[in-house]
Amino acid sequence: MLKTFNDLADFSDEEIRALIDLANRLDAHPEPEALKGKVLSLLFLSPSLRTLASFQAAMVRLGGGSFVISPDMSIHGLESRHGIVMDGVAAEHIREAVPVIASYGNAIGIRAFAERKSLEDDMAEKEFRALTSLVDKPWINMESAMGHPCQNLADWKTLDDYSVPANGGKFVLSWAYHPKALPLAVPASTLYTAARRGMDVTVLRPEGFELPPSVMDKARTAAENAGGSVRESDDRREAMEGAHIIYAKSWSSTRHYGDRIADQKLRNELDDWCVDEPWFEPAAPDCRFMHCLPVRRGVVVADGVLDGPRSIVIHEARNRMLAQMAVLHQMMGDKA
Amino acid sequence: MLKTFNDLADFSDEEIRALIDLANRLDAHPEPEALKGKVLSLLFLSPSLRTLASFQAAMVRLGGGSFVISPDMSIHGLESRHGIVMDGVAAEHIREAVPVIASYGNAIGIRAFAERKSLEDDMAEKEFRALTSLVDKPWINMESAMGHPCQNLADWKTLDDYSVPANGGKFVLSWAYHPKALPLAVPASTLYTAARRGMDVTVLRPEGFELPPSVMDKARTAAENAGGSVRESDDRREAMEGAHIIYAKSWSSTRHYGDRIADQKLRNELDDWCVDEPWFEPAAPDCRFMHCLPVRRGVVVADGVLDGPRSIVIHEARNRMLAQMAVLHQMMGDKA
Amino acid sequence: MLKTFNDLADFSDEEIRALIDLANRLDAHPEPEALKGKVLSLLFLSPSLRTLASFQAAMVRLGGGSFVISPDMSIHGLESRHGIVMDGVAAEHIREAVPVIASYGNAIGIRAFAERKSLEDDMAEKEFRALTSLVDKPWINMESAMGHPCQNLADWKTLDDYSVPANGGKFVLSWAYHPKALPLAVPASTLYTAARRGMDVTVLRPEGFELPPSVMDKARTAAENAGGSVRESDDRREAMEGAHIIYAKSWSSTRHYGDRIADQKLRNELDDWCVDEPWFEPAAPDCRFMHCLPVRRGVVVADGVLDGPRSIVIHEARNRMLAQMAVLHQMMGDKA
Repeated sequence: MLKTFNDLADFSDEEIRALIDLANRLDAHPEPEALKGKVLSLLFLSPSLRTLASFQAAMVRLGGGSFVISPDMSIHGLESRHGIVMDGVAAEHIREAVPVIASYGNAIGIRAFAERKSLEDDMAEKEFRALTSLVDKPWINMESAMGHPCQNLADWKTLDDYSVPANGGKFVLSWAYHPKALPLAVPASTLYTAARRGMDVTVLRPEGFELPPSVMDKARTAAENAGGSVRESDDRREAMEGAHIIYAKSWSSTRHYGDRIADQKLRNELDDWCVDEPWFEPAAPDCRFMHCLPVRRGVVVADGVLDGPRSIVIHEARNRMLAQMAVLHQMMGDKA
Repeated sequence: MLKTFNDLADFSDEEIRALIDLANRLDAHPEPEALKGKVLSLLFLSPSLRTLASFQAAMVRLGGGSFVISPDMSIHGLESRHGIVMDGVAAEHIREAVPVIASYGNAIGIRAFAERKSLEDDMAEKEFRALTSLVDKPWINMESAMGHPCQNLADWKTLDDYSVPANGGKFVLSWAYHPKALPLAVPASTLYTAARRGMDVTVLRPEGFELPPSVMDKARTAAENAGGSVRESDDRREAMEGAHIIYAKSWSSTRHYGDRIADQKLRNELDDWCVDEPWFEPAAPDCRFMHCLPVRRGVVVADGVLDGPRSIVIHEARNRMLAQMAVLHQMMGDKA
Repeated sequence: MLKTFNDLADFSDEEIRALIDLANRLDAHPEPEALKGKVLSLLFLSPSLRTLASFQAAMVRLGGGSFVISPDMSIHGLESRHGIVMDGVAAEHIREAVPVIASYGNAIGIRAFAERKSLEDDMAEKEFRALTSLVDKPWINMESAMGHPCQNLADWKTLDDYSVPANGGKFVLSWAYHPKALPLAVPASTLYTAARRGMDVTVLRPEGFELPPSVMDKARTAAENAGGSVRESDDRREAMEGAHIIYAKSWSSTRHYGDRIADQKLRNELDDWCVDEPWFEPAAPDCRFMHCLPVRRGVVVADGVLDGPRSIVIHEARNRMLAQMAVLHQMMGDKA
């Protein structure tokens, strides 16, 4: 039985393959009784559209159901600090809320974005661990400070669906401009995923936006084991040479992590980092565009790319639901 | 299989009859397995109470489920303008959000009220078409600028339930006072519905609140084909003569469409347009009061009417669920 | 068939026992088909976390589903005043909204906290009766001005689960400090519950926070019938002597009910009413701590108590779901 779904690194290649096979099977052959009477608790401490929708849909398709709790649904803001005297606004502490919400479900999904104050705290998943340590049920990471395994599994399936080579496939993870500093969860875990799949991965990013050394190292080790490679570049043309996939994503400056003003100053110069058709000139002819969504048009990517045949973002987003159905099935199904 | 439910005008009399028969059958003989494992995506770009509740209830009664997305549920405001550089507040464009949300369901319902800036744009369903053109699944109009087919089907069933004559039945669609300028969707589509049913329909409205010529023409043609008639009046007593039904609804001034100040000035004089018992004096003795709800008491209609035996608004509202169950059954059921 | 679930006082001992037995049975032996295709309407006029989550989860576990309506979900604020001319913000009256929402379900749950303007009105459940009088379906009190029967049934089950003696068990209902004036629903109905169970109950509260005489009288009568007793005290040590349970809860000053400033002035002196380990010195060695949640740490109760072995609040909260499953099963199940 699957107990936690937190990081693809916790799974063997065979286990990942089994999840993707199950996702494909559930797409082809629905099992509307698999999770009959089973409940998924969904706790969103950060906003959501795809995750919110796809988990609810996944549970219905498997015959179960879910409920959603987010702090803005009630007067009860949730306090998370340890040892605090709660005489302010928050009427409830996560130490009660999380176990109670978990107790109503057969499993729980939790989302809490990075606080982006301290890179060290975020890398250590300080907040997310505080939440999950309170759960004694199977749980799913619906995006934490550094992880987004549901997106990763969906992306792996998407690469398979489009027959992108595992070994020999060239995957470019490209930073893109965005008016706001965004978390590292998607770029860090996407890098690992492509490397783990055995692809030759280039992290294309301007200076100041290097991914943290431990993130790079984890990916390099995974690539070595799988017959792939990981390198970094700030040269668009070189990075895109022969690429099968460009996966665009904006993220915070790691040089100025938690320093909003310095980050803003640095990124303000970089608004030409908008993926556009000319980027693809050195790439493989059928090079595809991926993004986890939501994506800002004309900012992260040009309309022409997103609306053209290179874009597989809608297929990728639908795979979220299918990948999650596989996880839920293994977590709560009778054979689980 | 039913592919879209957008306008009663797209359906033959036999098809409308079949939907109402199915609604009655599902009321008498529940089918809690009909849509097992099926998902309805619900996208609300405008507020809702009845539609929100009745669609969710309908899916559960048929053994499936649904999820709700409304932009205020997340930081992601939805951008809809074409070719825009998204460097403002909105983090997601409808061109991604709508296909993704649709991809998680077996069908999707969409609500987007009239923008009420340009009558031409609203009459052309400019915004709603932009949304539905992005959907490759069966879809349901949950109220657009000019249409509200779920309300229309529920109203048709309500008229049947109360044995209101189709041919020879007199139906008064009456404007009513309201402090705010409201969309034309309900009056325009209700007029068509009553006319299509073969009734003799009078649009009772003050000057400046005439329904658009194309709306009147569409209803007149439908009435002619069905043995009914359509006329306009601003004379309450004449309009109500022998009426079997008064259907009250406030709507925007078409003379000043999109001009909030001019509309307000015109309507400020008209707060005596509150349906009250004396209105019924020339009507048929058992003349009924209908309204799509929500309704403002003491403004649109007097308490005495709404709380008295003439009012069938609760029955009418419950028929929303039953009518929608029929539509959903035809759209997603195994025989669909 | 269970028609209303509003007050444990409406049920015989055998009926309460049957509900708890059913809750235990459904916990041990799930019945994921019991409420197939059945819908619970959930109307929240006051905020919620546990009730919101546990009712949704309960319906899924029994094979049905639910939908949630709260006024902040739409532009339609709900008007409740009688005979009002609705030309202000509220676009809908409870006289329409409640019957319509009820009509979409097989049963309805309603929550409306005390208005805390007039003790007389709140004691008479003026607002809640106005709401439930509009319902012609089975209904559940999800917390009204003076009642919270779902909490009460869950608490009764919790006392059973921990083998707390019914006769001879000592139950202390203790007022606790809180920065805000809270309703009387939980203390009043908890007092009744413990008394009804036959326990020796002490209401421990500072002066000015006496529970209303009719509340005390109802509990005393119940205790007498069940072989228990009810007394009041403002002496912590005396009250806790031999106690098996301390149930903490803050509530409004009844001396200054509805007078926010006077209440605040009185409670400001009482912030030492925070349940802490020294309170337990005269109690039974395994004296347990209960609270309905949400609870403010360091304000109502010290971290050490809440995180230690005395606290059974998570178990208590999970029993909400199980107790409600029993109620829903009796209300909507086929044998119901």
